[in-house]
Amino acid sequence: MAATGPSDPMFTTERMSAIFSPESRVRRLLEFEAALARAEARAGIIPERAAEAIGNKCDVGLYDVPALEREAAVAGTLALPLVRRLTEHVQEDARGFVHWGTTSQDALDTGMVLQVREGLDVLVDDLLAVGSSCASLAERHAATPMAGRTLLQHAVPITFGLKAAHWLSLTTSQVHRLVEARGEALAVQLGGAAGTLAALGGRGIHVAELLAGELDLAPPDLPWHTDRDRVALLAGALGTVAGAMGKIATDVVLLAQTEVGEVSEGAAPGKGRSSAMPQKRNAVDATFALSAARLAIGVVPVLLWSMVQEHERAVGGWQAEWAAVPELFRHTAGAVGRVRTVVENLEVDPQRMRANLEASGGQVMAEALAMALATHVGRHEAHDIVAGATRRAAEGGVDLRTAAGDDERVRALVGLADLDRILDPATYLGDAEAFVGRAIERFREVAARARQSR
Amino acid sequence: MAATGPSDPMFTTERMSAIFSPESRVRRLLEFEAALARAEARAGIIPERAAEAIGNKCDVGLYDVPALEREAAVAGTLALPLVRRLTEHVQEDARGFVHWGTTSQDALDTGMVLQVREGLDVLVDDLLAVGSSCASLAERHAATPMAGRTLLQHAVPITFGLKAAHWLSLTTSQVHRLVEARGEALAVQLGGAAGTLAALGGRGIHVAELLAGELDLAPPDLPWHTDRDRVALLAGALGTVAGAMGKIATDVVLLAQTEVGEVSEGAAPGKGRSSAMPQKRNAVDATFALSAARLAIGVVPVLLWSMVQEHERAVGGWQAEWAAVPELFRHTAGAVGRVRTVVENLEVDPQRMRANLEASGGQVMAEALAMALATHVGRHEAHDIVAGATRRAAEGGVDLRTAAGDDERVRALVGLADLDRILDPATYLGDAEAFVGRAIERFREVAARARQSR
Amino acid sequence: MAATGPSDPMFTTERMSAIFSPESRVRRLLEFEAALARAEARAGIIPERAAEAIGNKCDVGLYDVPALEREAAVAGTLALPLVRRLTEHVQEDARGFVHWGTTSQDALDTGMVLQVREGLDVLVDDLLAVGSSCASLAERHAATPMAGRTLLQHAVPITFGLKAAHWLSLTTSQVHRLVEARGEALAVQLGGAAGTLAALGGRGIHVAELLAGELDLAPPDLPWHTDRDRVALLAGALGTVAGAMGKIATDVVLLAQTEVGEVSEGAAPGKGRSSAMPQKRNAVDATFALSAARLAIGVVPVLLWSMVQEHERAVGGWQAEWAAVPELFRHTAGAVGRVRTVVENLEVDPQRMRANLEASGGQVMAEALAMALATHVGRHEAHDIVAGATRRAAEGGVDLRTAAGDDERVRALVGLADLDRILDPATYLGDAEAFVGRAIERFREVAARARQSR
Amino acid sequence: MAATGPSDPMFTTERMSAIFSPESRVRRLLEFEAALARAEARAGIIPERAAEAIGNKCDVGLYDVPALEREAAVAGTLALPLVRRLTEHVQEDARGFVHWGTTSQDALDTGMVLQVREGLDVLVDDLLAVGSSCASLAERHAATPMAGRTLLQHAVPITFGLKAAHWLSLTTSQVHRLVEARGEALAVQLGGAAGTLAALGGRGIHVAELLAGELDLAPPDLPWHTDRDRVALLAGALGTVAGAMGKIATDVVLLAQTEVGEVSEGAAPGKGRSSAMPQKRNAVDATFALSAARLAIGVVPVLLWSMVQEHERAVGGWQAEWAAVPELFRHTAGAVGRVRTVVENLEVDPQRMRANLEASGGQVMAEALAMALATHVGRHEAHDIVAGATRRAAEGGVDLRTAAGDDERVRALVGLADLDRILDPATYLGDAEAFVGRAIERFREVAARARQSR
Repeated sequence: MAATGPSDPMFTTERMSAIFSPESRVRRLLEFEAALARAEARAGIIPERAAEAIGNKCDVGLYDVPALEREAAVAGTLALPLVRRLTEHVQEDARGFVHWGTTSQDALDTGMVLQVREGLDVLVDDLLAVGSSCASLAERHAATPMAGRTLLQHAVPITFGLKAAHWLSLTTSQVHRLVEARGEALAVQLGGAAGTLAALGGRGIHVAELLAGELDLAPPDLPWHTDRDRVALLAGALGTVAGAMGKIATDVVLLAQTEVGEVSEGAAPGKGRSSAMPQKRNAVDATFALSAARLAIGVVPVLLWSMVQEHERAVGGWQAEWAAVPELFRHTAGAVGRVRTVVENLEVDPQRMRANLEASGGQVMAEALAMALATHVGRHEAHDIVAGATRRAAEGGVDLRTAAGDDERVRALVGLADLDRILDPATYLGDAEAFVGRAIERFREVAARARQSR
Repeated sequence: MAATGPSDPMFTTERMSAIFSPESRVRRLLEFEAALARAEARAGIIPERAAEAIGNKCDVGLYDVPALEREAAVAGTLALPLVRRLTEHVQEDARGFVHWGTTSQDALDTGMVLQVREGLDVLVDDLLAVGSSCASLAERHAATPMAGRTLLQHAVPITFGLKAAHWLSLTTSQVHRLVEARGEALAVQLGGAAGTLAALGGRGIHVAELLAGELDLAPPDLPWHTDRDRVALLAGALGTVAGAMGKIATDVVLLAQTEVGEVSEGAAPGKGRSSAMPQKRNAVDATFALSAARLAIGVVPVLLWSMVQEHERAVGGWQAEWAAVPELFRHTAGAVGRVRTVVENLEVDPQRMRANLEASGGQVMAEALAMALATHVGRHEAHDIVAGATRRAAEGGVDLRTAAGDDERVRALVGLADLDRILDPATYLGDAEAFVGRAIERFREVAARARQSR
Repeated sequence: MAATGPSDPMFTTERMSAIFSPESRVRRLLEFEAALARAEARAGIIPERAAEAIGNKCDVGLYDVPALEREAAVAGTLALPLVRRLTEHVQEDARGFVHWGTTSQDALDTGMVLQVREGLDVLVDDLLAVGSSCASLAERHAATPMAGRTLLQHAVPITFGLKAAHWLSLTTSQVHRLVEARGEALAVQLGGAAGTLAALGGRGIHVAELLAGELDLAPPDLPWHTDRDRVALLAGALGTVAGAMGKIATDVVLLAQTEVGEVSEGAAPGKGRSSAMPQKRNAVDATFALSAARLAIGVVPVLLWSMVQEHERAVGGWQAEWAAVPELFRHTAGAVGRVRTVVENLEVDPQRMRANLEASGGQVMAEALAMALATHVGRHEAHDIVAGATRRAAEGGVDLRTAAGDDERVRALVGLADLDRILDPATYLGDAEAFVGRAIERFREVAARARQSR
Repeated sequence: MAATGPSDPMFTTERMSAIFSPESRVRRLLEFEAALARAEARAGIIPERAAEAIGNKCDVGLYDVPALEREAAVAGTLALPLVRRLTEHVQEDARGFVHWGTTSQDALDTGMVLQVREGLDVLVDDLLAVGSSCASLAERHAATPMAGRTLLQHAVPITFGLKAAHWLSLTTSQVHRLVEARGEALAVQLGGAAGTLAALGGRGIHVAELLAGELDLAPPDLPWHTDRDRVALLAGALGTVAGAMGKIATDVVLLAQTEVGEVSEGAAPGKGRSSAMPQKRNAVDATFALSAARLAIGVVPVLLWSMVQEHERAVGGWQAEWAAVPELFRHTAGAVGRVRTVVENLEVDPQRMRANLEASGGQVMAEALAMALATHVGRHEAHDIVAGATRRAAEGGVDLRTAAGDDERVRALVGLADLDRILDPATYLGDAEAFVGRAIERFREVAARARQSR
């Protein structure tokens, strides 16, 4: 089919791709039509038998999806040709009750909400897997020292466990937010032609509630045909997920650099090789997490600006959602899925971490020394003393221990014996371990709540 | 000062501009330094008297803000030159305790959070004012019929009250969200050089809690130097506010068109005139609400992508926030402030609404007729009958009443007497009134909660 | 195939979808491999017979494209599995010369450039069709007066021909720019592993020139593995095309409003109907042009930020192009294609234009009157006189002719006889006709050049 | 002034900030009014003496700019209050001829174009300075070997001169493009109320040409009030400049990492220190180049979407340009200015480059060996032999020379004597030197043309 192109597996996951496939879209529209008929039957608006007859034909297998897509491109909405075909399928005496009292947008928005629910659940599953792996890394490496790096320069020691705890904390927050977004975004749409539900003759709100019940969605205060903050909220939440994954992936590609070499993505057959260079093992998954995150974030402003809709139904802003929402879910899923693979298979090299930490001749311990001195002479003067020592160390090609030991103020204030202790990275890890514990604990709580929320 | 440019009053409000001015930024940094000193004194880390001496010099009036800004551009951070100047100001025996055990980013992030809190409160105030005006409009015009418009075509009747209720509902949701965002985003930052708080020798978490108490902020589980989901969340929330204001403004400019003329922005001296055309009265405030909304939304992806930060402190992503966050608040405030002016002064013309509703010769009642027929012959056939009538009406230059009355099926199914009732817009408003009531009620609840949350 | 999703025909065209399909991508990579082999044979680097043997297997029909895509997602590049399969297909004695001295990115970038060339040609074709239709509209309606509208208010008269001339002018500029972009963007990529062409042993530049000749592309000064301004340039150009189409579509949806009714999209079977409202005829194509334009523009910053690439080959920025470039072409094509349908079928209603022009009781002629008076009393005083007249006209419910005629200054300065002439829209069209002529002339020149440039 | 905020010197340059200051904006509007009066006098439309009288009052020093800004925020346009004040200043008999036959947008657009011209010239100046420094670096280090890095892994050797040549090439292209953009974007705006120039009574096109001459701008084919592709083109060009600077800055921050240490930004008093860590020297300028680039790119889609303007004058899209265009220039200038500082002061460490190149035990030469073998056994088999050697080298902790020498196929095919030559990085630099020469040559040509174009 020339008209169908790729949902490139590089930038998404199979599961998410399936949720937002054309088939799934049609299936969800049919789910709306069936549930609407049931709700209207329960409200006494259409006959029970009509509802049943309609429901019997709401099976996606009965429909030619690519043909529907082509007709939709002309009609301007997928609901129109689908309702026409559904009406044809339904037996004659029930035919008149198909899509009763509703409008295309009711079907399309509710269908999208059903896809979104499934999409959010898949994202949460993958994020929980990311979190579990990060929690393991954090726990296992709670006492593995490495260089903390700020502006890509060695700063002070941290542990790899702390770094993993930050990845975990970011991931936990994303789970928390998506669970919240699920609650806020998942409202049924039922407003009729212009949001008054006039075609349901005063029983519209009741039908909306029954419909919401049928689909296990929330009934909104008002129809939300052109009040798209629910969609915008989702966009912000997914963009934030993508950004969070981008942060983790960035750390990984930086740690995997040839000169750093502290982690590497696990090997897999056919993975990360170069067509030219036999020695290479590229951080493929982190790389594509970064690409997918870029693509996801690019969609967010499209959805925010699409809030600016005209009157009771929009020209362009609403329709753009039909491409943008799936795109956002696909690419966010791609970022999460790739990071999941990264953290599940990450190879960590504590010895290289230690070697890098020591490679600067103790300069990474400059703050530790400065703080030790500062208790005696104040922060400012201590900073100056240590700055002098670091400079002399760099110029003289010696380590900080030697340069500092040569300074008589240092000897007088802390003594040479204490100097060794002060300059030992293991003594200057502050609350790293406590933070690891906190991150793991919060993950467990949020994960438990996420699992209950289904 | 050549180096300072405009925070153009066209696209923001004076209050928001002041909150994010260079002076305010320095004031907030000093607030951090004073509070940190107090917290450290309470924790027994620095002497009480030092904390007092430091606090005495944390007065923005003592500092040359433009000079600090220029130094900051070289230093790479405003905190560095400010801490140096503060240290100079503080009396000698306390000098060594300035900025103890902390790092530039702790001060800058916490300072930003304090600005953000004030900014959110101002946005909420303005949104509550927007909401109040929308509630009045909704109440006053709950029974004012007008054309509902979808894809800029007449669809079915609604009321202007319902339209205002949608503006209200969108605004209420924004208040709700910003109050939530206030809760989630307002965490103190204290991590030290690389997030371990090592320089506070094991008492870092305690100091962070005391500091949070001093500033009435939340203490976070972990320092969040490169975990920027709090900022991204804010960005999404403010972008959504901007989008919501854009929707309201769009409705207003469309309703104010010469050919529609159903509302106009109130007149004000010097407002909305043309330099060439004496008759014009442009919808200036709605126009600038739309501009400001565009500008605000443009900032959101910058902040989302800025989440992708390196290791323990970022090269570029973090620093971009210093310009982007103020920009986002300024432009969002501009959008809200302009919409506030619009809805507070909106002139509504119910007669013109009625005239436009009737201008299409009753075509806007086509669905009403179709639904009346559908109860007899089903939706599909009814649709066909009415489609025929609307076509004959258009071609014959007659109204729908006439064309429909000429169709014997119509006469047989509903009778001519009922036809008039069916085609009266006032009988086909569905749940419009109920929705108005719901929107007002929810606004009152959320507004009450918003006011309590301070 | 669960892993493949929609290239939704709503937001693109079939032709563009085909150009950027997975099959096409593989076909283009094979085209590169075949051309490289020929070039290397001509340079005496590999045997003629090997080149021939390789070329014989560069037929996309030999390859399982979905399987390649899945392997690519693991490998991190489509080139790797494809080259492996190609090598397997090639007869044994030529096998060692496949992909000689090159790297994945050389193949992928050159392949993309070949797709881009085809994509640009299709866009230019569609834009030329848009231009032809706009030129016809401009010519046919060069003397059809209508209201000029600024900030959605009547300003002064224009002609519909002038409006169409602006659409034409915008379209002409896009053709011009894409033809230029074609020249600048279409460079072959050949750099080898890190851009030195070392694997070609000093003959690399010569091979690059031969390869460029084979593919009818430009040989670049330097390989451009991480110098992506060519791609960014394209992104800006296509985003501008999308914006231009959005402007035309906006004019159409506004002119097609029920209250304005000056144009409508032509009818087509199954098009633009409502599932609820029989009377509706929505501006479907303009609506989807607006959606597609939004989607296209959303991709532009992704490609701009993707310029920020690391060293000799990027982690994430480059790979994002693989999804973003096709997305940009697809959505831009969607916008252009939809506008093409709009302007090719546009129904124009000059009577309604005339009626709307007159509906304001001559207020649209206020500037004309002011200018006539200004020659006697200066611009400022004239503006005041007319402002008074427009106000009295509005308040008194009379037309501007009457209100102005009541003012003795008006009678004294221009006389009642002249007043009618002054207030006739046909006398106040300025250079509208000349501008129409200019727009058409420039289109013809640019179109001729565009056709020659192939 | 609470209403004015920062044009933060961190993210822009003083020169650019001055060009887009409120004062400059008013000055440019006055320049338009004076030139218009002169043009109209030359066309015989207003008296010579009136033009002179108007010109005499077009001095920005006569106006209270902040007061004008506040009035503009109400009026909806700066031109309106300014024209009113100008009219008051002008002597009575000339007063009536101020702003004759024109409209606010003519003044505002032309004023913006004048600012843009100055802004482009400043960007070109700074880019030429960047180019000069890159050319020096490229020349000086044409034979300085370093590791080429792809996906942040060592690939094959390059030279630092080649890396600088790529920076140069990117910069050269930006100069070229801005010079082109200057030609295309700089058109005068003169259309009158709705683009017909009716108020100039048939002499409008002539006046537009005279006005263009006065201001040394191009006369456009048609007024371009809502045809904003000129602005969009600029946006794309500046966004591309920002992206190019981001690429250079990224390379610098990566090369300056503690573990890489191949370059560092030059020291400067007060620069790049840490408040906590005495040893640090952060790459401050590259960091802010990256921030400014992000901010600049964020503005691009705002300007692209702002093309979607309504009818003859827009509601929101046009007005957004007033903030977005200055923002884009300021941030792009910030990125260029910061990179200029980086490359003018860059400290390069060839010894560290050599050390890093050798640190992997010759693995960086794997491709070189593979190509040497491939001439005997084909690419595929050669790749396998070398992959084996690199694996054995890594596992055995030996260098590639040793592991390869242990393989009898290697010994048989190339011999041990040749092996040393093959594995010497200096023998595997391909066309690096030629590319350096090409980049420098093209820069010289483009720079010469850029200087002539003023």
